[in-house]
Amino acid sequence: MILPPEFSLIARHFRPLAGPGALDLRDDAALLTPPPGKQLVLTVDAMVAGVHFFPDDPPDLVGQKLLRVNLSDLAAKGATPLGYLMTVSTPRGTADSWFAGFAAGLARDQKTYGCTLLGGDTTSTSGPISLSLTIIGHVTPGLSVHRFGASAGDGIWVTGTIGDGALGLQVALGKLQDPSGFLLDRYRLPQPRVGLPIGGIASAGMDVSDGLVQDLGHMCRASGLRAEIDSAAVPASDAAQAAGPAWLGTRLTGGDDYELLLAVPPAKEPELKAVGIAVTRIGSFHSGPPEVMVRGPGGETLAFDKDGWSHF
Amino acid sequence: MILPPEFSLIARHFRPLAGPGALDLRDDAALLTPPPGKQLVLTVDAMVAGVHFFPDDPPDLVGQKLLRVNLSDLAAKGATPLGYLMTVSTPRGTADSWFAGFAAGLARDQKTYGCTLLGGDTTSTSGPISLSLTIIGHVTPGLSVHRFGASAGDGIWVTGTIGDGALGLQVALGKLQDPSGFLLDRYRLPQPRVGLPIGGIASAGMDVSDGLVQDLGHMCRASGLRAEIDSAAVPASDAAQAAGPAWLGTRLTGGDDYELLLAVPPAKEPELKAVGIAVTRIGSFHSGPPEVMVRGPGGETLAFDKDGWSHF
Repeated sequence: MILPPEFSLIARHFRPLAGPGALDLRDDAALLTPPPGKQLVLTVDAMVAGVHFFPDDPPDLVGQKLLRVNLSDLAAKGATPLGYLMTVSTPRGTADSWFAGFAAGLARDQKTYGCTLLGGDTTSTSGPISLSLTIIGHVTPGLSVHRFGASAGDGIWVTGTIGDGALGLQVALGKLQDPSGFLLDRYRLPQPRVGLPIGGIASAGMDVSDGLVQDLGHMCRASGLRAEIDSAAVPASDAAQAAGPAWLGTRLTGGDDYELLLAVPPAKEPELKAVGIAVTRIGSFHSGPPEVMVRGPGGETLAFDKDGWSHF
Repeated sequence: MILPPEFSLIARHFRPLAGPGALDLRDDAALLTPPPGKQLVLTVDAMVAGVHFFPDDPPDLVGQKLLRVNLSDLAAKGATPLGYLMTVSTPRGTADSWFAGFAAGLARDQKTYGCTLLGGDTTSTSGPISLSLTIIGHVTPGLSVHRFGASAGDGIWVTGTIGDGALGLQVALGKLQDPSGFLLDRYRLPQPRVGLPIGGIASAGMDVSDGLVQDLGHMCRASGLRAEIDSAAVPASDAAQAAGPAWLGTRLTGGDDYELLLAVPPAKEPELKAVGIAVTRIGSFHSGPPEVMVRGPGGETLAFDKDGWSHF
């Protein structure tokens, strides 16, 4: 019996990624027995070539980024990954090596982060490669973290360093030098904070994917609060510091950090500092209309236009 | 605070579709408490303009089709819909009316089939409109139906009529007349068999989406059996009969039926006949290497080439 190329492609590249419940990708649906007593956390992200990645990016990095941007959303909810479903739309004639590389990247990260493929769909498209991934995690009821829930007086905290992804994009565009390659790596391959035990510590949280100022704005609106942050307190990597102060606006408004942005009540700060990774307090929430106020090096207010770029 | 156009689009068109657990689409993930004692069934399908639908198809029908092809997969597993997540990638400048229509189609079908939007992502693309939908349903453990599990001697049954979708595509392409409009309707708007109580009745099952012969081939491989069907027994609608016998190959190998294809042990036939809709026995499973044998009107074997077309 002759099989359409789609099925041989699935068998070669995607079946090895299938985990429990995927029924070896031989059925048209997956079966998942939820962990007893847990809630499920679900999130989905699309990535399109030319929008979210460069068409000539190495396919294993594309696969890893697709999985990691979703893992980052789970991490921000305090959830533990279970599995994922994905759709892959590619132009006719996409090389088999692209699929092999893409699957190799997913395989690597499945091991790193502990999740498996539950199901998927492959189709052709007349446009660029178009990917969509739905991830499912679990959380103890009452311990999930949301964009809403912050209170006036809570500190605003971030994990790791902010702005490396946005600077890495500028490196990829040839607009910034990056002798160490650190910034480009940060742009190409997010490091999601999976497994950070923020449930019961953070009153609100999300990952920083669209840029610190914009994402903090989401938390302000969701929690009905005003945020004030100190630009000098926003942690910068050595490579970002080397880029110089002219890039501050890019660092604060660019995307692709995949660090966590958390609201933490003062009483919970000791617990937060014990989670085992670098966390930095960059400001605090206040009563008032939803707005993000960014203080510059001299205490002045920095303004950002609708494209997110700063004007000093 | 100025919001990017994406957020206003979500608020206007997609927030009204959000159900329990979607957190009003204000968070970056959904929370789902699985029904106690149930297993979850998950499936995903992508639809690309120019491949799965015509770019000028009415957007409400596109939304309905996107949801219904996934509901059909759930129906084939004997599962009850809970909710869905989706990604929508559109070219810049896609009219607001397209999103309004698309959401109206989804809203209509959410009511019809009892499910709500849990989350999503909207992005731009330089290519055609590209959609992906992950649906989640639930089933009583032990009562889910799969492509595997059929036994030699089981009857092969289908719901409704077969081939209308494939003929409807030919109507859309201007290659076939359709005075009643019935065939085109069947192609444009699947009627998924949601809620049909096939658990405990069918030993195996799937929906007919890629064409009866190809899909039956999947069941043969999954169950390790040979299938024999009688082309004259495959139920045809009045409109398909009016098209004439020259279209038999198209009817048996074309896609987009979204009827159910079931393996049913003889002892379960009375229960199957009592499910409340038209079901027809078209053949049976036998021991032997996985293969689909189709008998023609005179008992001869019909052959299909790799494109699925028949040669008499």
